[in-house]
Amino acid sequence: MSLDLQLYSVRTDLALESKEMAQGPQRTPIPGVNEEVEEADGIKVTRLAVATEAGSQAIGRAIGNYVTLEVPALRGGDSGLQQKVSETFAYEFERFLLRIGIGKESSILIVGLGNWNVTPDSLGPLVVENSLITRQFYELMPDQISPGYRKVSAIAPGVLGLTGIESSEIVQGIVDRTKPDVIIAIDALASRSLERINTTIQIADIGIHPGSGIGNKRRGLTREILGIPCIAIGVPTVCYASTIVNNVLEMMKNHFGQGAPTKEIMGMLDDISEQERLSLVKEVLEPLGHDLIVTPKEIDEFIEVIANIVASGLNEALHDAVDPDNVGAYTH
Amino acid sequence: MSLDLQLYSVRTDLALESKEMAQGPQRTPIPGVNEEVEEADGIKVTRLAVATEAGSQAIGRAIGNYVTLEVPALRGGDSGLQQKVSETFAYEFERFLLRIGIGKESSILIVGLGNWNVTPDSLGPLVVENSLITRQFYELMPDQISPGYRKVSAIAPGVLGLTGIESSEIVQGIVDRTKPDVIIAIDALASRSLERINTTIQIADIGIHPGSGIGNKRRGLTREILGIPCIAIGVPTVCYASTIVNNVLEMMKNHFGQGAPTKEIMGMLDDISEQERLSLVKEVLEPLGHDLIVTPKEIDEFIEVIANIVASGLNEALHDAVDPDNVGAYTH
Amino acid sequence: MSLDLQLYSVRTDLALESKEMAQGPQRTPIPGVNEEVEEADGIKVTRLAVATEAGSQAIGRAIGNYVTLEVPALRGGDSGLQQKVSETFAYEFERFLLRIGIGKESSILIVGLGNWNVTPDSLGPLVVENSLITRQFYELMPDQISPGYRKVSAIAPGVLGLTGIESSEIVQGIVDRTKPDVIIAIDALASRSLERINTTIQIADIGIHPGSGIGNKRRGLTREILGIPCIAIGVPTVCYASTIVNNVLEMMKNHFGQGAPTKEIMGMLDDISEQERLSLVKEVLEPLGHDLIVTPKEIDEFIEVIANIVASGLNEALHDAVDPDNVGAYTH
Amino acid sequence: MSLDLQLYSVRTDLALESKEMAQGPQRTPIPGVNEEVEEADGIKVTRLAVATEAGSQAIGRAIGNYVTLEVPALRGGDSGLQQKVSETFAYEFERFLLRIGIGKESSILIVGLGNWNVTPDSLGPLVVENSLITRQFYELMPDQISPGYRKVSAIAPGVLGLTGIESSEIVQGIVDRTKPDVIIAIDALASRSLERINTTIQIADIGIHPGSGIGNKRRGLTREILGIPCIAIGVPTVCYASTIVNNVLEMMKNHFGQGAPTKEIMGMLDDISEQERLSLVKEVLEPLGHDLIVTPKEIDEFIEVIANIVASGLNEALHDAVDPDNVGAYTH
Repeated sequence: MSLDLQLYSVRTDLALESKEMAQGPQRTPIPGVNEEVEEADGIKVTRLAVATEAGSQAIGRAIGNYVTLEVPALRGGDSGLQQKVSETFAYEFERFLLRIGIGKESSILIVGLGNWNVTPDSLGPLVVENSLITRQFYELMPDQISPGYRKVSAIAPGVLGLTGIESSEIVQGIVDRTKPDVIIAIDALASRSLERINTTIQIADIGIHPGSGIGNKRRGLTREILGIPCIAIGVPTVCYASTIVNNVLEMMKNHFGQGAPTKEIMGMLDDISEQERLSLVKEVLEPLGHDLIVTPKEIDEFIEVIANIVASGLNEALHDAVDPDNVGAYTH
Repeated sequence: MSLDLQLYSVRTDLALESKEMAQGPQRTPIPGVNEEVEEADGIKVTRLAVATEAGSQAIGRAIGNYVTLEVPALRGGDSGLQQKVSETFAYEFERFLLRIGIGKESSILIVGLGNWNVTPDSLGPLVVENSLITRQFYELMPDQISPGYRKVSAIAPGVLGLTGIESSEIVQGIVDRTKPDVIIAIDALASRSLERINTTIQIADIGIHPGSGIGNKRRGLTREILGIPCIAIGVPTVCYASTIVNNVLEMMKNHFGQGAPTKEIMGMLDDISEQERLSLVKEVLEPLGHDLIVTPKEIDEFIEVIANIVASGLNEALHDAVDPDNVGAYTH
Repeated sequence: MSLDLQLYSVRTDLALESKEMAQGPQRTPIPGVNEEVEEADGIKVTRLAVATEAGSQAIGRAIGNYVTLEVPALRGGDSGLQQKVSETFAYEFERFLLRIGIGKESSILIVGLGNWNVTPDSLGPLVVENSLITRQFYELMPDQISPGYRKVSAIAPGVLGLTGIESSEIVQGIVDRTKPDVIIAIDALASRSLERINTTIQIADIGIHPGSGIGNKRRGLTREILGIPCIAIGVPTVCYASTIVNNVLEMMKNHFGQGAPTKEIMGMLDDISEQERLSLVKEVLEPLGHDLIVTPKEIDEFIEVIANIVASGLNEALHDAVDPDNVGAYTH
Repeated sequence: MSLDLQLYSVRTDLALESKEMAQGPQRTPIPGVNEEVEEADGIKVTRLAVATEAGSQAIGRAIGNYVTLEVPALRGGDSGLQQKVSETFAYEFERFLLRIGIGKESSILIVGLGNWNVTPDSLGPLVVENSLITRQFYELMPDQISPGYRKVSAIAPGVLGLTGIESSEIVQGIVDRTKPDVIIAIDALASRSLERINTTIQIADIGIHPGSGIGNKRRGLTREILGIPCIAIGVPTVCYASTIVNNVLEMMKNHFGQGAPTKEIMGMLDDISEQERLSLVKEVLEPLGHDLIVTPKEIDEFIEVIANIVASGLNEALHDAVDPDNVGAYTH
């Protein structure tokens, strides 16, 4: 039984999940990976810094900063909570920009990755549509811009199957011509667990790497490729069937494992490591086809809510003139 | 470990799957359940007749006729195949009507169940929109109707959460006032396997029963309630996470079971019956919430294709004047 | 030149416009039609009472109460103004219910008329989707309903072309079975002027009459037909090309008419009455077809905004527990 | 009364209408403008060549080739006619490419201009979505491409208000990086008459000029700017209120003008030239705002039909392997 661990490490796009997998059930701290957790009002914020090469290798994530908001109750439809999450996201994103040295004057290009025709992949385009765009005013009437508005442009480049062109090539063409200081790329992610879907937001300063997100990107959006800082905002909107299965096996293990002869119930499935088990599941599922990516059936509504949260938060974080009292005026 | 088998028997809305579960891996024939299978051009047609109370109990399905079309390749996007499926469906549906004694003059009310805002639940409303409706002409200008068109009306009654009224109550109100001879109800179903999603169509003369389909119906659409024959057309568009997990365990069993000590690998999971295992999985998954209904991420496109197939097939089956050459003119 | 005035009186669905047309440019008061105007924050509220048969004949409107909100700036995209309009609408609607004797305990059926596939005709279905529906809780768990929520159900019955059944027949079937005390019908209207489109809301206690609204209704939704009070809420979303043309001719007359020999410029078009001129325009336009109903190109966005205003206002007016601070939680 | 003719000459984007306006009611031939008309099956094809500077000045159009398909019955919903138009369009477009020297091997970038959120402006993005895209296969697996497929990519760059970047800048960035041989730009146009809306298709080899189409483009897509041939495909989907009014006045003139004293009826409106009258109308309408662009209320359905016709036609014209029998397989 060959275990191609490399392959499965992409099964989650969340650094937090990678870290948890690497830590195992004992939650052993990982050298080179610093963590800071805060929780209030049902919103858990985890600030992860992958500081060393060793830390990076241990969790299979690039060196960089990762902030994750987890809000398990987000799918409950409480609009008060939604607003709170949006404000927390705005606060964290603003701090994130400052921490990595991006000033208030930097001009921004927001890139909404994904396919607007595939609901769980439409997060990026939806955020673009609700972002407060100002670059045209800077070009056409620079003298008349009120204070408090930063120069922001945005693009939803579509997906390779619809355009025939890699998103990163389109973005690079636009970067060459419009010279933004920073890219903020929004992407729908895959998660290991159904519960994370549309309840978790990840901010990272490592850009978008090939193979991450839902679509099959072959080239990424990174500082190396584009020459400017690339911040990625991701929300899990799908998960793989294999990770669901694996999750359940893990839960079974915990469920029966309390002082009981789990091995009797689960056989070898009890013994092997999580990675090995995932591999096993994958070996079984593979022949069924590539499309075993699933999403909750209410995805249409969830995706609108989360896109609105991200766009409102971005508008507030990027423009001083936008605050919780008027942020609603800029989204649909 | 208490196994509430009753509960899980609703996990599939397909009679074919119920039968397969009841038969077990040996495919033992079930007394009182007659089966006829035909396969051509990648389309498998199974005509199931649950003829006796014993047969009904054995597979947990009402006495009645069930025709199932299975087309595994349907999600591949081949429009030639789509047309072939539509024609086969039209042919089978026309025969089905005749077999259960519904003549060419019977007037029809098509009921599109489900929620048009939730993509995997929007099959019914989509079929309604693409159905050829003629009742208004029968009311307004009965003398001018060309031969070959039957009297057809349609309604998408919405879902309880949006209307506050049970679909069946809305339908009954309409039946009382417009007096159709027969109801054809279209509904999105839950299946046991992801592969069946949008590749399988079931026709049944047992109406819609409470608890079936995606939504939580408390009253059904049946001959007993409405006083006229109710034919149900269903397409699986979601499946439960628990059934996916269970499926994989079954596949594992088969995968390793060929002459190998499966028990070693899977422990008790190898021994217990499918129903028990499903129960076990469910016991573990339950605490996660009720929303573990999943759908493939490309559902937006799949649902349009299958709705078009069903609507075209219906139009062709119901109106003699509609045939493969002009059927496209009536759908969008 | 035969002037079929009857025909053209349907060219506006707004009582306010009918009254203005009847008054002529001199704004002569009309006996039997009482008017009360209030204006604040850019919102003009006109409360019109057509009290006598003579008044009804003079303006071509049924005896009854009409409240109109006019907000010319509404299409400007100011979300603060949108909220203000929603609150004003809620306030006026609540007063309207009390004035015509509908108490806080009356159960309501909201009817969203129109076709959800035709953007300017989708107002009704959109309002239904954003209404706070409670009837199901009254049916399923009457003891657990918090105070401040009225019994409300809703239906979007579709249009004759899609269902083959008159909206009024569907509604009557539902009324027979669910016994609401009052109907509130939402409909998209035709106006005489493009500027009124999506900037005006009309409330009336006369129900929906055949031929009003965008679709071609042959039967209405009125107290006479349904046996319960029918309140109509309408928003103009289209206008006829002929009324645009006529409007411009009128404006020309005013434009050049200040002490100038208008007759020289406009010939007979200057002399004839508005009704005659409209007839003339119509005589010319008729041969072009029936589809000369036009709408602004940005209708997609406008319609969402106004549907949200009406739904929020309704939710607030119908349920004491809904107020400006939490109203957003009930709409999408 | 100052007549700013320059301003109004942009009121139509159709060369055919410009020519007709320049010709006047006598249809005087215009030197330097050659015309070839063919009509069959209810489809009128006009091939216009603006050959000289004088011809260009006379009709206010750039020197170049224009092919226009007019199909008055197209909005009737006849799917047989739709297919015929698609085939005629494919035939004309293929000939057009050859005539202007674009060979079968040239690689193409299709640019879908416009805003996908504004229905009448969504033609371009809709065509992009239904175009057969192959460039990714040329990049990833050049050896495995079947004969008969040309290298085609596509982009819907969005509109300035949503992106903050001119469409032409985005396109130029993509051209720089992907080096297509030819651009085909699809754009929604404004027409002088409501009847032309979604019934007329224009092909031109002059690219997209600033100010043309629905959006307010400040830079164009032309050979001068992009360095490669730019073919424009346009469909009128809106018209200006002022042109409707003007049209009606013209019709009135013709209506009453047959041997009657029109001047008596229409005064000066009878005397002045079409351009002057349009100016007059505009002077009156201007104060009402900029949004007096109107579209038929059924635009949602019309736009889907015409986008499908254009996309199918393009697929057939660009790829030899696509023909009338399989063209449906490539559009949605």
